[in-house]
Amino acid sequence: MEFVTALVFIFIACACGIVWAIFNWMAVHKIEIHHKHEGLTELLQGAEQEKIETLLEIGEHIQDGAQAFLREEYTDCSVFLAIMAVLLIFISPWSSLAFVLGAATSMLCGYLGMAIATAANFRTAFSAITSLANAFQMAYRGGCVMGFLLVSISLSILTLIIIIYNAIIVKSDENNFEDLVTMFDYVAAYGLGGSTFALFGRVGGGIYTKAADVGADLVGKVEKNLPEDSPKNPATIADNVGDNVGDIAGMGADLFGSFAESTCAALVVSSTQLRVLSGDTYVIEIGQLMYPLMVSAFGIGICILVSAYAVYISKVNHINKIESTLKFQLLLSTVALSPIIIGIAYWCLPADFVMVAADNSIQLADLKPWHAFLCSLMGLWSGLLIGYFTEYMTSHSYTPVREVAKSCGTGAATNIIYGLALGYLSTIVPIIAIAITALLSMKMLSFYGVALAALGMLSNLTIGLAIDAYGPISDNAGGIAEMSELGENVRESTDALDAAGNTTAAIGKGFAIGSAALVSLSLYGGYLTRIQTYKVGDQFPFAEGAKIDDPIIFAMLLIGAMLPYAFSAFTMKSVGKAALQMVEEVRRQLHEHPGIYAGTEEPDFRACIAISTKASLKEMIPPGLLVIVTPTAVGLFFGPYAVAGLLPGALVSGVQMAISASNTGGAWDNAKKYIEAGFYRNEAGEVKKKGSDEHKAAVIGDTVGDPLKDTSGPSLNILIKLMAILSLVLAGAFCRTGWLYKPE
Amino acid sequence: MEFVTALVFIFIACACGIVWAIFNWMAVHKIEIHHKHEGLTELLQGAEQEKIETLLEIGEHIQDGAQAFLREEYTDCSVFLAIMAVLLIFISPWSSLAFVLGAATSMLCGYLGMAIATAANFRTAFSAITSLANAFQMAYRGGCVMGFLLVSISLSILTLIIIIYNAIIVKSDENNFEDLVTMFDYVAAYGLGGSTFALFGRVGGGIYTKAADVGADLVGKVEKNLPEDSPKNPATIADNVGDNVGDIAGMGADLFGSFAESTCAALVVSSTQLRVLSGDTYVIEIGQLMYPLMVSAFGIGICILVSAYAVYISKVNHINKIESTLKFQLLLSTVALSPIIIGIAYWCLPADFVMVAADNSIQLADLKPWHAFLCSLMGLWSGLLIGYFTEYMTSHSYTPVREVAKSCGTGAATNIIYGLALGYLSTIVPIIAIAITALLSMKMLSFYGVALAALGMLSNLTIGLAIDAYGPISDNAGGIAEMSELGENVRESTDALDAAGNTTAAIGKGFAIGSAALVSLSLYGGYLTRIQTYKVGDQFPFAEGAKIDDPIIFAMLLIGAMLPYAFSAFTMKSVGKAALQMVEEVRRQLHEHPGIYAGTEEPDFRACIAISTKASLKEMIPPGLLVIVTPTAVGLFFGPYAVAGLLPGALVSGVQMAISASNTGGAWDNAKKYIEAGFYRNEAGEVKKKGSDEHKAAVIGDTVGDPLKDTSGPSLNILIKLMAILSLVLAGAFCRTGWLYKPE
Repeated sequence: MEFVTALVFIFIACACGIVWAIFNWMAVHKIEIHHKHEGLTELLQGAEQEKIETLLEIGEHIQDGAQAFLREEYTDCSVFLAIMAVLLIFISPWSSLAFVLGAATSMLCGYLGMAIATAANFRTAFSAITSLANAFQMAYRGGCVMGFLLVSISLSILTLIIIIYNAIIVKSDENNFEDLVTMFDYVAAYGLGGSTFALFGRVGGGIYTKAADVGADLVGKVEKNLPEDSPKNPATIADNVGDNVGDIAGMGADLFGSFAESTCAALVVSSTQLRVLSGDTYVIEIGQLMYPLMVSAFGIGICILVSAYAVYISKVNHINKIESTLKFQLLLSTVALSPIIIGIAYWCLPADFVMVAADNSIQLADLKPWHAFLCSLMGLWSGLLIGYFTEYMTSHSYTPVREVAKSCGTGAATNIIYGLALGYLSTIVPIIAIAITALLSMKMLSFYGVALAALGMLSNLTIGLAIDAYGPISDNAGGIAEMSELGENVRESTDALDAAGNTTAAIGKGFAIGSAALVSLSLYGGYLTRIQTYKVGDQFPFAEGAKIDDPIIFAMLLIGAMLPYAFSAFTMKSVGKAALQMVEEVRRQLHEHPGIYAGTEEPDFRACIAISTKASLKEMIPPGLLVIVTPTAVGLFFGPYAVAGLLPGALVSGVQMAISASNTGGAWDNAKKYIEAGFYRNEAGEVKKKGSDEHKAAVIGDTVGDPLKDTSGPSLNILIKLMAILSLVLAGAFCRTGWLYKPE
Repeated sequence: MEFVTALVFIFIACACGIVWAIFNWMAVHKIEIHHKHEGLTELLQGAEQEKIETLLEIGEHIQDGAQAFLREEYTDCSVFLAIMAVLLIFISPWSSLAFVLGAATSMLCGYLGMAIATAANFRTAFSAITSLANAFQMAYRGGCVMGFLLVSISLSILTLIIIIYNAIIVKSDENNFEDLVTMFDYVAAYGLGGSTFALFGRVGGGIYTKAADVGADLVGKVEKNLPEDSPKNPATIADNVGDNVGDIAGMGADLFGSFAESTCAALVVSSTQLRVLSGDTYVIEIGQLMYPLMVSAFGIGICILVSAYAVYISKVNHINKIESTLKFQLLLSTVALSPIIIGIAYWCLPADFVMVAADNSIQLADLKPWHAFLCSLMGLWSGLLIGYFTEYMTSHSYTPVREVAKSCGTGAATNIIYGLALGYLSTIVPIIAIAITALLSMKMLSFYGVALAALGMLSNLTIGLAIDAYGPISDNAGGIAEMSELGENVRESTDALDAAGNTTAAIGKGFAIGSAALVSLSLYGGYLTRIQTYKVGDQFPFAEGAKIDDPIIFAMLLIGAMLPYAFSAFTMKSVGKAALQMVEEVRRQLHEHPGIYAGTEEPDFRACIAISTKASLKEMIPPGLLVIVTPTAVGLFFGPYAVAGLLPGALVSGVQMAISASNTGGAWDNAKKYIEAGFYRNEAGEVKKKGSDEHKAAVIGDTVGDPLKDTSGPSLNILIKLMAILSLVLAGAFCRTGWLYKPE
């Protein structure tokens, strides 16, 4: 396919995505909140007007808090990113520029996501006064804005970079492979920029949200018997701000990273290895490499239709319909994308191509477009499988979570034991799915296949992000409804929205981890290709593959597998420490101002926000440095083979920890919700709800799960991706250095 | 060195070890317990005689319970072992025979260890009436019997097998390499037998002990406020029996496995690869391979002297001296063994040797004895480092555990979060130590170096086992003292002995894991050597190394890394389930017989023993099969390369989980002890002890830690070792099958 044709389609798709996002944005903002809103007059009488004002006020506080945090976070990160950008100039100014653009895109997407989420949350609460369907619409439209903006903006900026770099760097003669390879090497720094910022976004946001959440729960729920999101709890607003900066901005940055990196990996690997016979020589043109971008572009188009179905056609007028509607979005987009992926493979890819090895010998011959679409399809459908399995393990509609809930009958200890076991067990299915996808796609198309599988899994990313962002918006809506005392009915609606959000959040995490594993593997492939093609004079000093029985590779495999543990230790303890500070502040306020508990005095929630902000910005530094410094130092001192062991070690160990941490946390959360909803009965048949010993045991599990599922677990995605893309960008430098260790 | 000379020294060392063990056995049994014991008359007056009778009675119950369990466990396992032995006949009848002998040795050692431990425990309690020094002696001598018997018996049986097989299989012509290789392949099944039984011993024993412990704690401590080991708690005896079947018999079988396997690995690798220039050809004689066995033999000798120092010279007359005396044993044996290891390297090894690759080309040239002793020394000293670091992370004398204890101030959730973080963090130092040892020893002597490092770490195994077995003996002594109401003083002595035992148990686990990692790596090396030398006609179809970027190897690396999670899920949940049954039984007894709580009726502890026995025998099957079936099935269906990915995946992931699980559990246990000992003060400066909220939070952590540190964690050692040795024994079969997947 011609490069220009591809560009036209990509930009049309991005434009449509952005228009659809703006359209939804406007639909959200159209809701003007005042007590004269139609249909409300009979619902809200007299004194109720005050509640609407409280609602607006709280919404504003959350917005302010989130903005203030992002501002500080962005300022702090900018310093670090600027240093990295300057260092990257030594690799190449082009890399440095792409890096800066990647980081800036990531920041922009995070910011926009936060902006729409904080605009949609109180509107969702408000809409819940009139009807569940309206509230659902509001929350889901908010999610759509986030999803479509993020994918469209990042795809269009990436495409722009490719156009510009191609024009400047690639000479237009016949054998321009090397220029293409160099060019995509520079482009890869776009992914690095996105991922580097994502690291701090995820870790910082994760610590912020969980310090507030854990701190609020420990004093509020456990000591003082306040309900969740009680306005009397000074940490409540910080908790709600946290949902936006952690689960929205952090998650957005994470998945932007996955998307950018897998695209970059596909481009790097294919420019190096994909060749087409023309006359009697093997050549490649840039237009023939556009398949991955086209998949994403058509993904945007299909997902617009799918989300329009949820917005206009499905009627969520009963709480039972919420979860099924969201899950159906995922299924529908997967089904609809399958034929499209097949079609564009035949359209975009050469009818016949080969993959060449580092020495330009043919590694895989006789390749057809169906090899490529099979890889993408496997990715797409494994994503769905992982998502649905995650739901099975973490939703209280099924046995696993119910067993965990039941174990609360003998106290917190058995709850923790059962929850940990559930998390460990939940690795089996996703890992087998990822392993089979990796095996078959590597078999068919080497690491290009893996990159295509990753992109296939991410082809319905817009929908994934929409249902994912829907979660924290509903969660916030619930909090705001509680705080502005909107009454049982409203709270019931928002609770139901929130419960479904918990499950979709778990599904989203499953996707994020699965795609991260494939992305990281394809980046690793890119890294290996790079070091194998590194040439000194007439020699390829690192031509040999990464053998496990090579001493340095095995030693580093072991150390790599340790990194996720070290990283989790840092992040878990950071949450613990920050939560303890939060607890002290909350205790102090409640102690010094008894009026707060009595309801006559307003708590000083700004002090709590300040604690979360300060703690997260400070505590995100050590784990962040661990991820960035380790592969760099190992590469510079021990050379490229050492890194070739470090990366798969971190990958195979990190993905297990990430899955088990997320699912354990999700299961504990929903086991608690199961008890709160009154489904739990003890041996004697009595229903045990809030306030019972069983519930207290469940709350302990939920609290432990918080940092696991929202800080450590998801940050591990970034660990495995970032280490890989960083190594890919620095591959040449590692080959030239490796001061301490020379291979025989 | 001549084969015969080596044999003489080995048998002398074994004989000395056995004599020293018997001597200590007699010293323990010399204590006849009656109320007329000298010095006791003034201590025990009138009614106190009854207590001595209770003590004897309880000791007997524990002995009976432990014997009954081992009998059933051995019966059940025998069936399974017999099936495996029959299947192994298809590999070779010699393998099958060695397998049976290995399993039988493991059973014998477990049984003897249990016998001495159950004889020493009540005598320790009894001796504590007269003095702390006597009680310490009793417990430590008990541990010595276990340590020396196990190492001496297993070394002598292994040597006997080598003598017999050598006489029958190896022809005495010049170029008898192939015979030697074949012979040691058969001998390797000795390690497989030991490890297979160890798997069931560890898992079964681990489930038994923790089901009883967790069950007893959940009702006794949490619900009924009974003290630990209260005679009113029907599960107390089962708990004490569990210490013997889990921590003594299980641990013994585990470390016997490590010892047998690392020796076998060293022999397999060295017979294949180690060669000496004689005239103008490279040859090898069996006598030149005896260095590993000689290290173990001299280890026994040195450790006799070191343990005699503890028994005769050091005076443990104050509770502060207990831990330091035990730690000093470790240091002393390490220091004393260092020059010996150097000396015998020069004595036993050829002055100049080479390692050859699979195709008989020279892989490493110009090797000297110092290469070998450096490997062993690195192993020995990394063991000490890991041990001491483990102590730092799990003893409440240092910051890490105190921080965990402090976090109990905000409840169980923060305790769990801090404990998990501590466990994750504690992987860093051991992993770096293992990685450096592996790197350097592989660099110097390929996988032979790794086997020597493992053997170095295990060269003071007798001392390691002695201080390790000391722990459960003291723990039991404390329980017995409590149950027979021997009074504050006695209980204080036994508590102090027990607290030190907790730390030494953690050190022991550190050793067990460190050595397991090295053993597994060296077995993996043996496996790779085997498949690389596998020949069909003139070809070596599997000559290529294990490349991480090979699709099947990467996929299996990922699946291998998942296995420890699946395994831990099974074992954790088994403990949880069995504990719930135990809780129900205890509740039932206390409810139906109120006399038990009042102290007028004796609880039916046999019912509790039956529950633990039945549950553990049933629940050990799924995790056991997982470990045995997975590598076998993967090898048979996907061929030898698939297994070459599976093993390192399980190794690098399993070792992290094992370390973090053990240390998390140890830290929680000691954080609880820290609070119980009255060291903990809250913010207001008040001391919080038993019964406080802080203590309750600590008990929850301790209970969660129980299955982590005593079931899942240590069983993972066996997972990584057993999978490797099983694959080594089945390597030829995998090369002939691999039905579903053919390499390109």
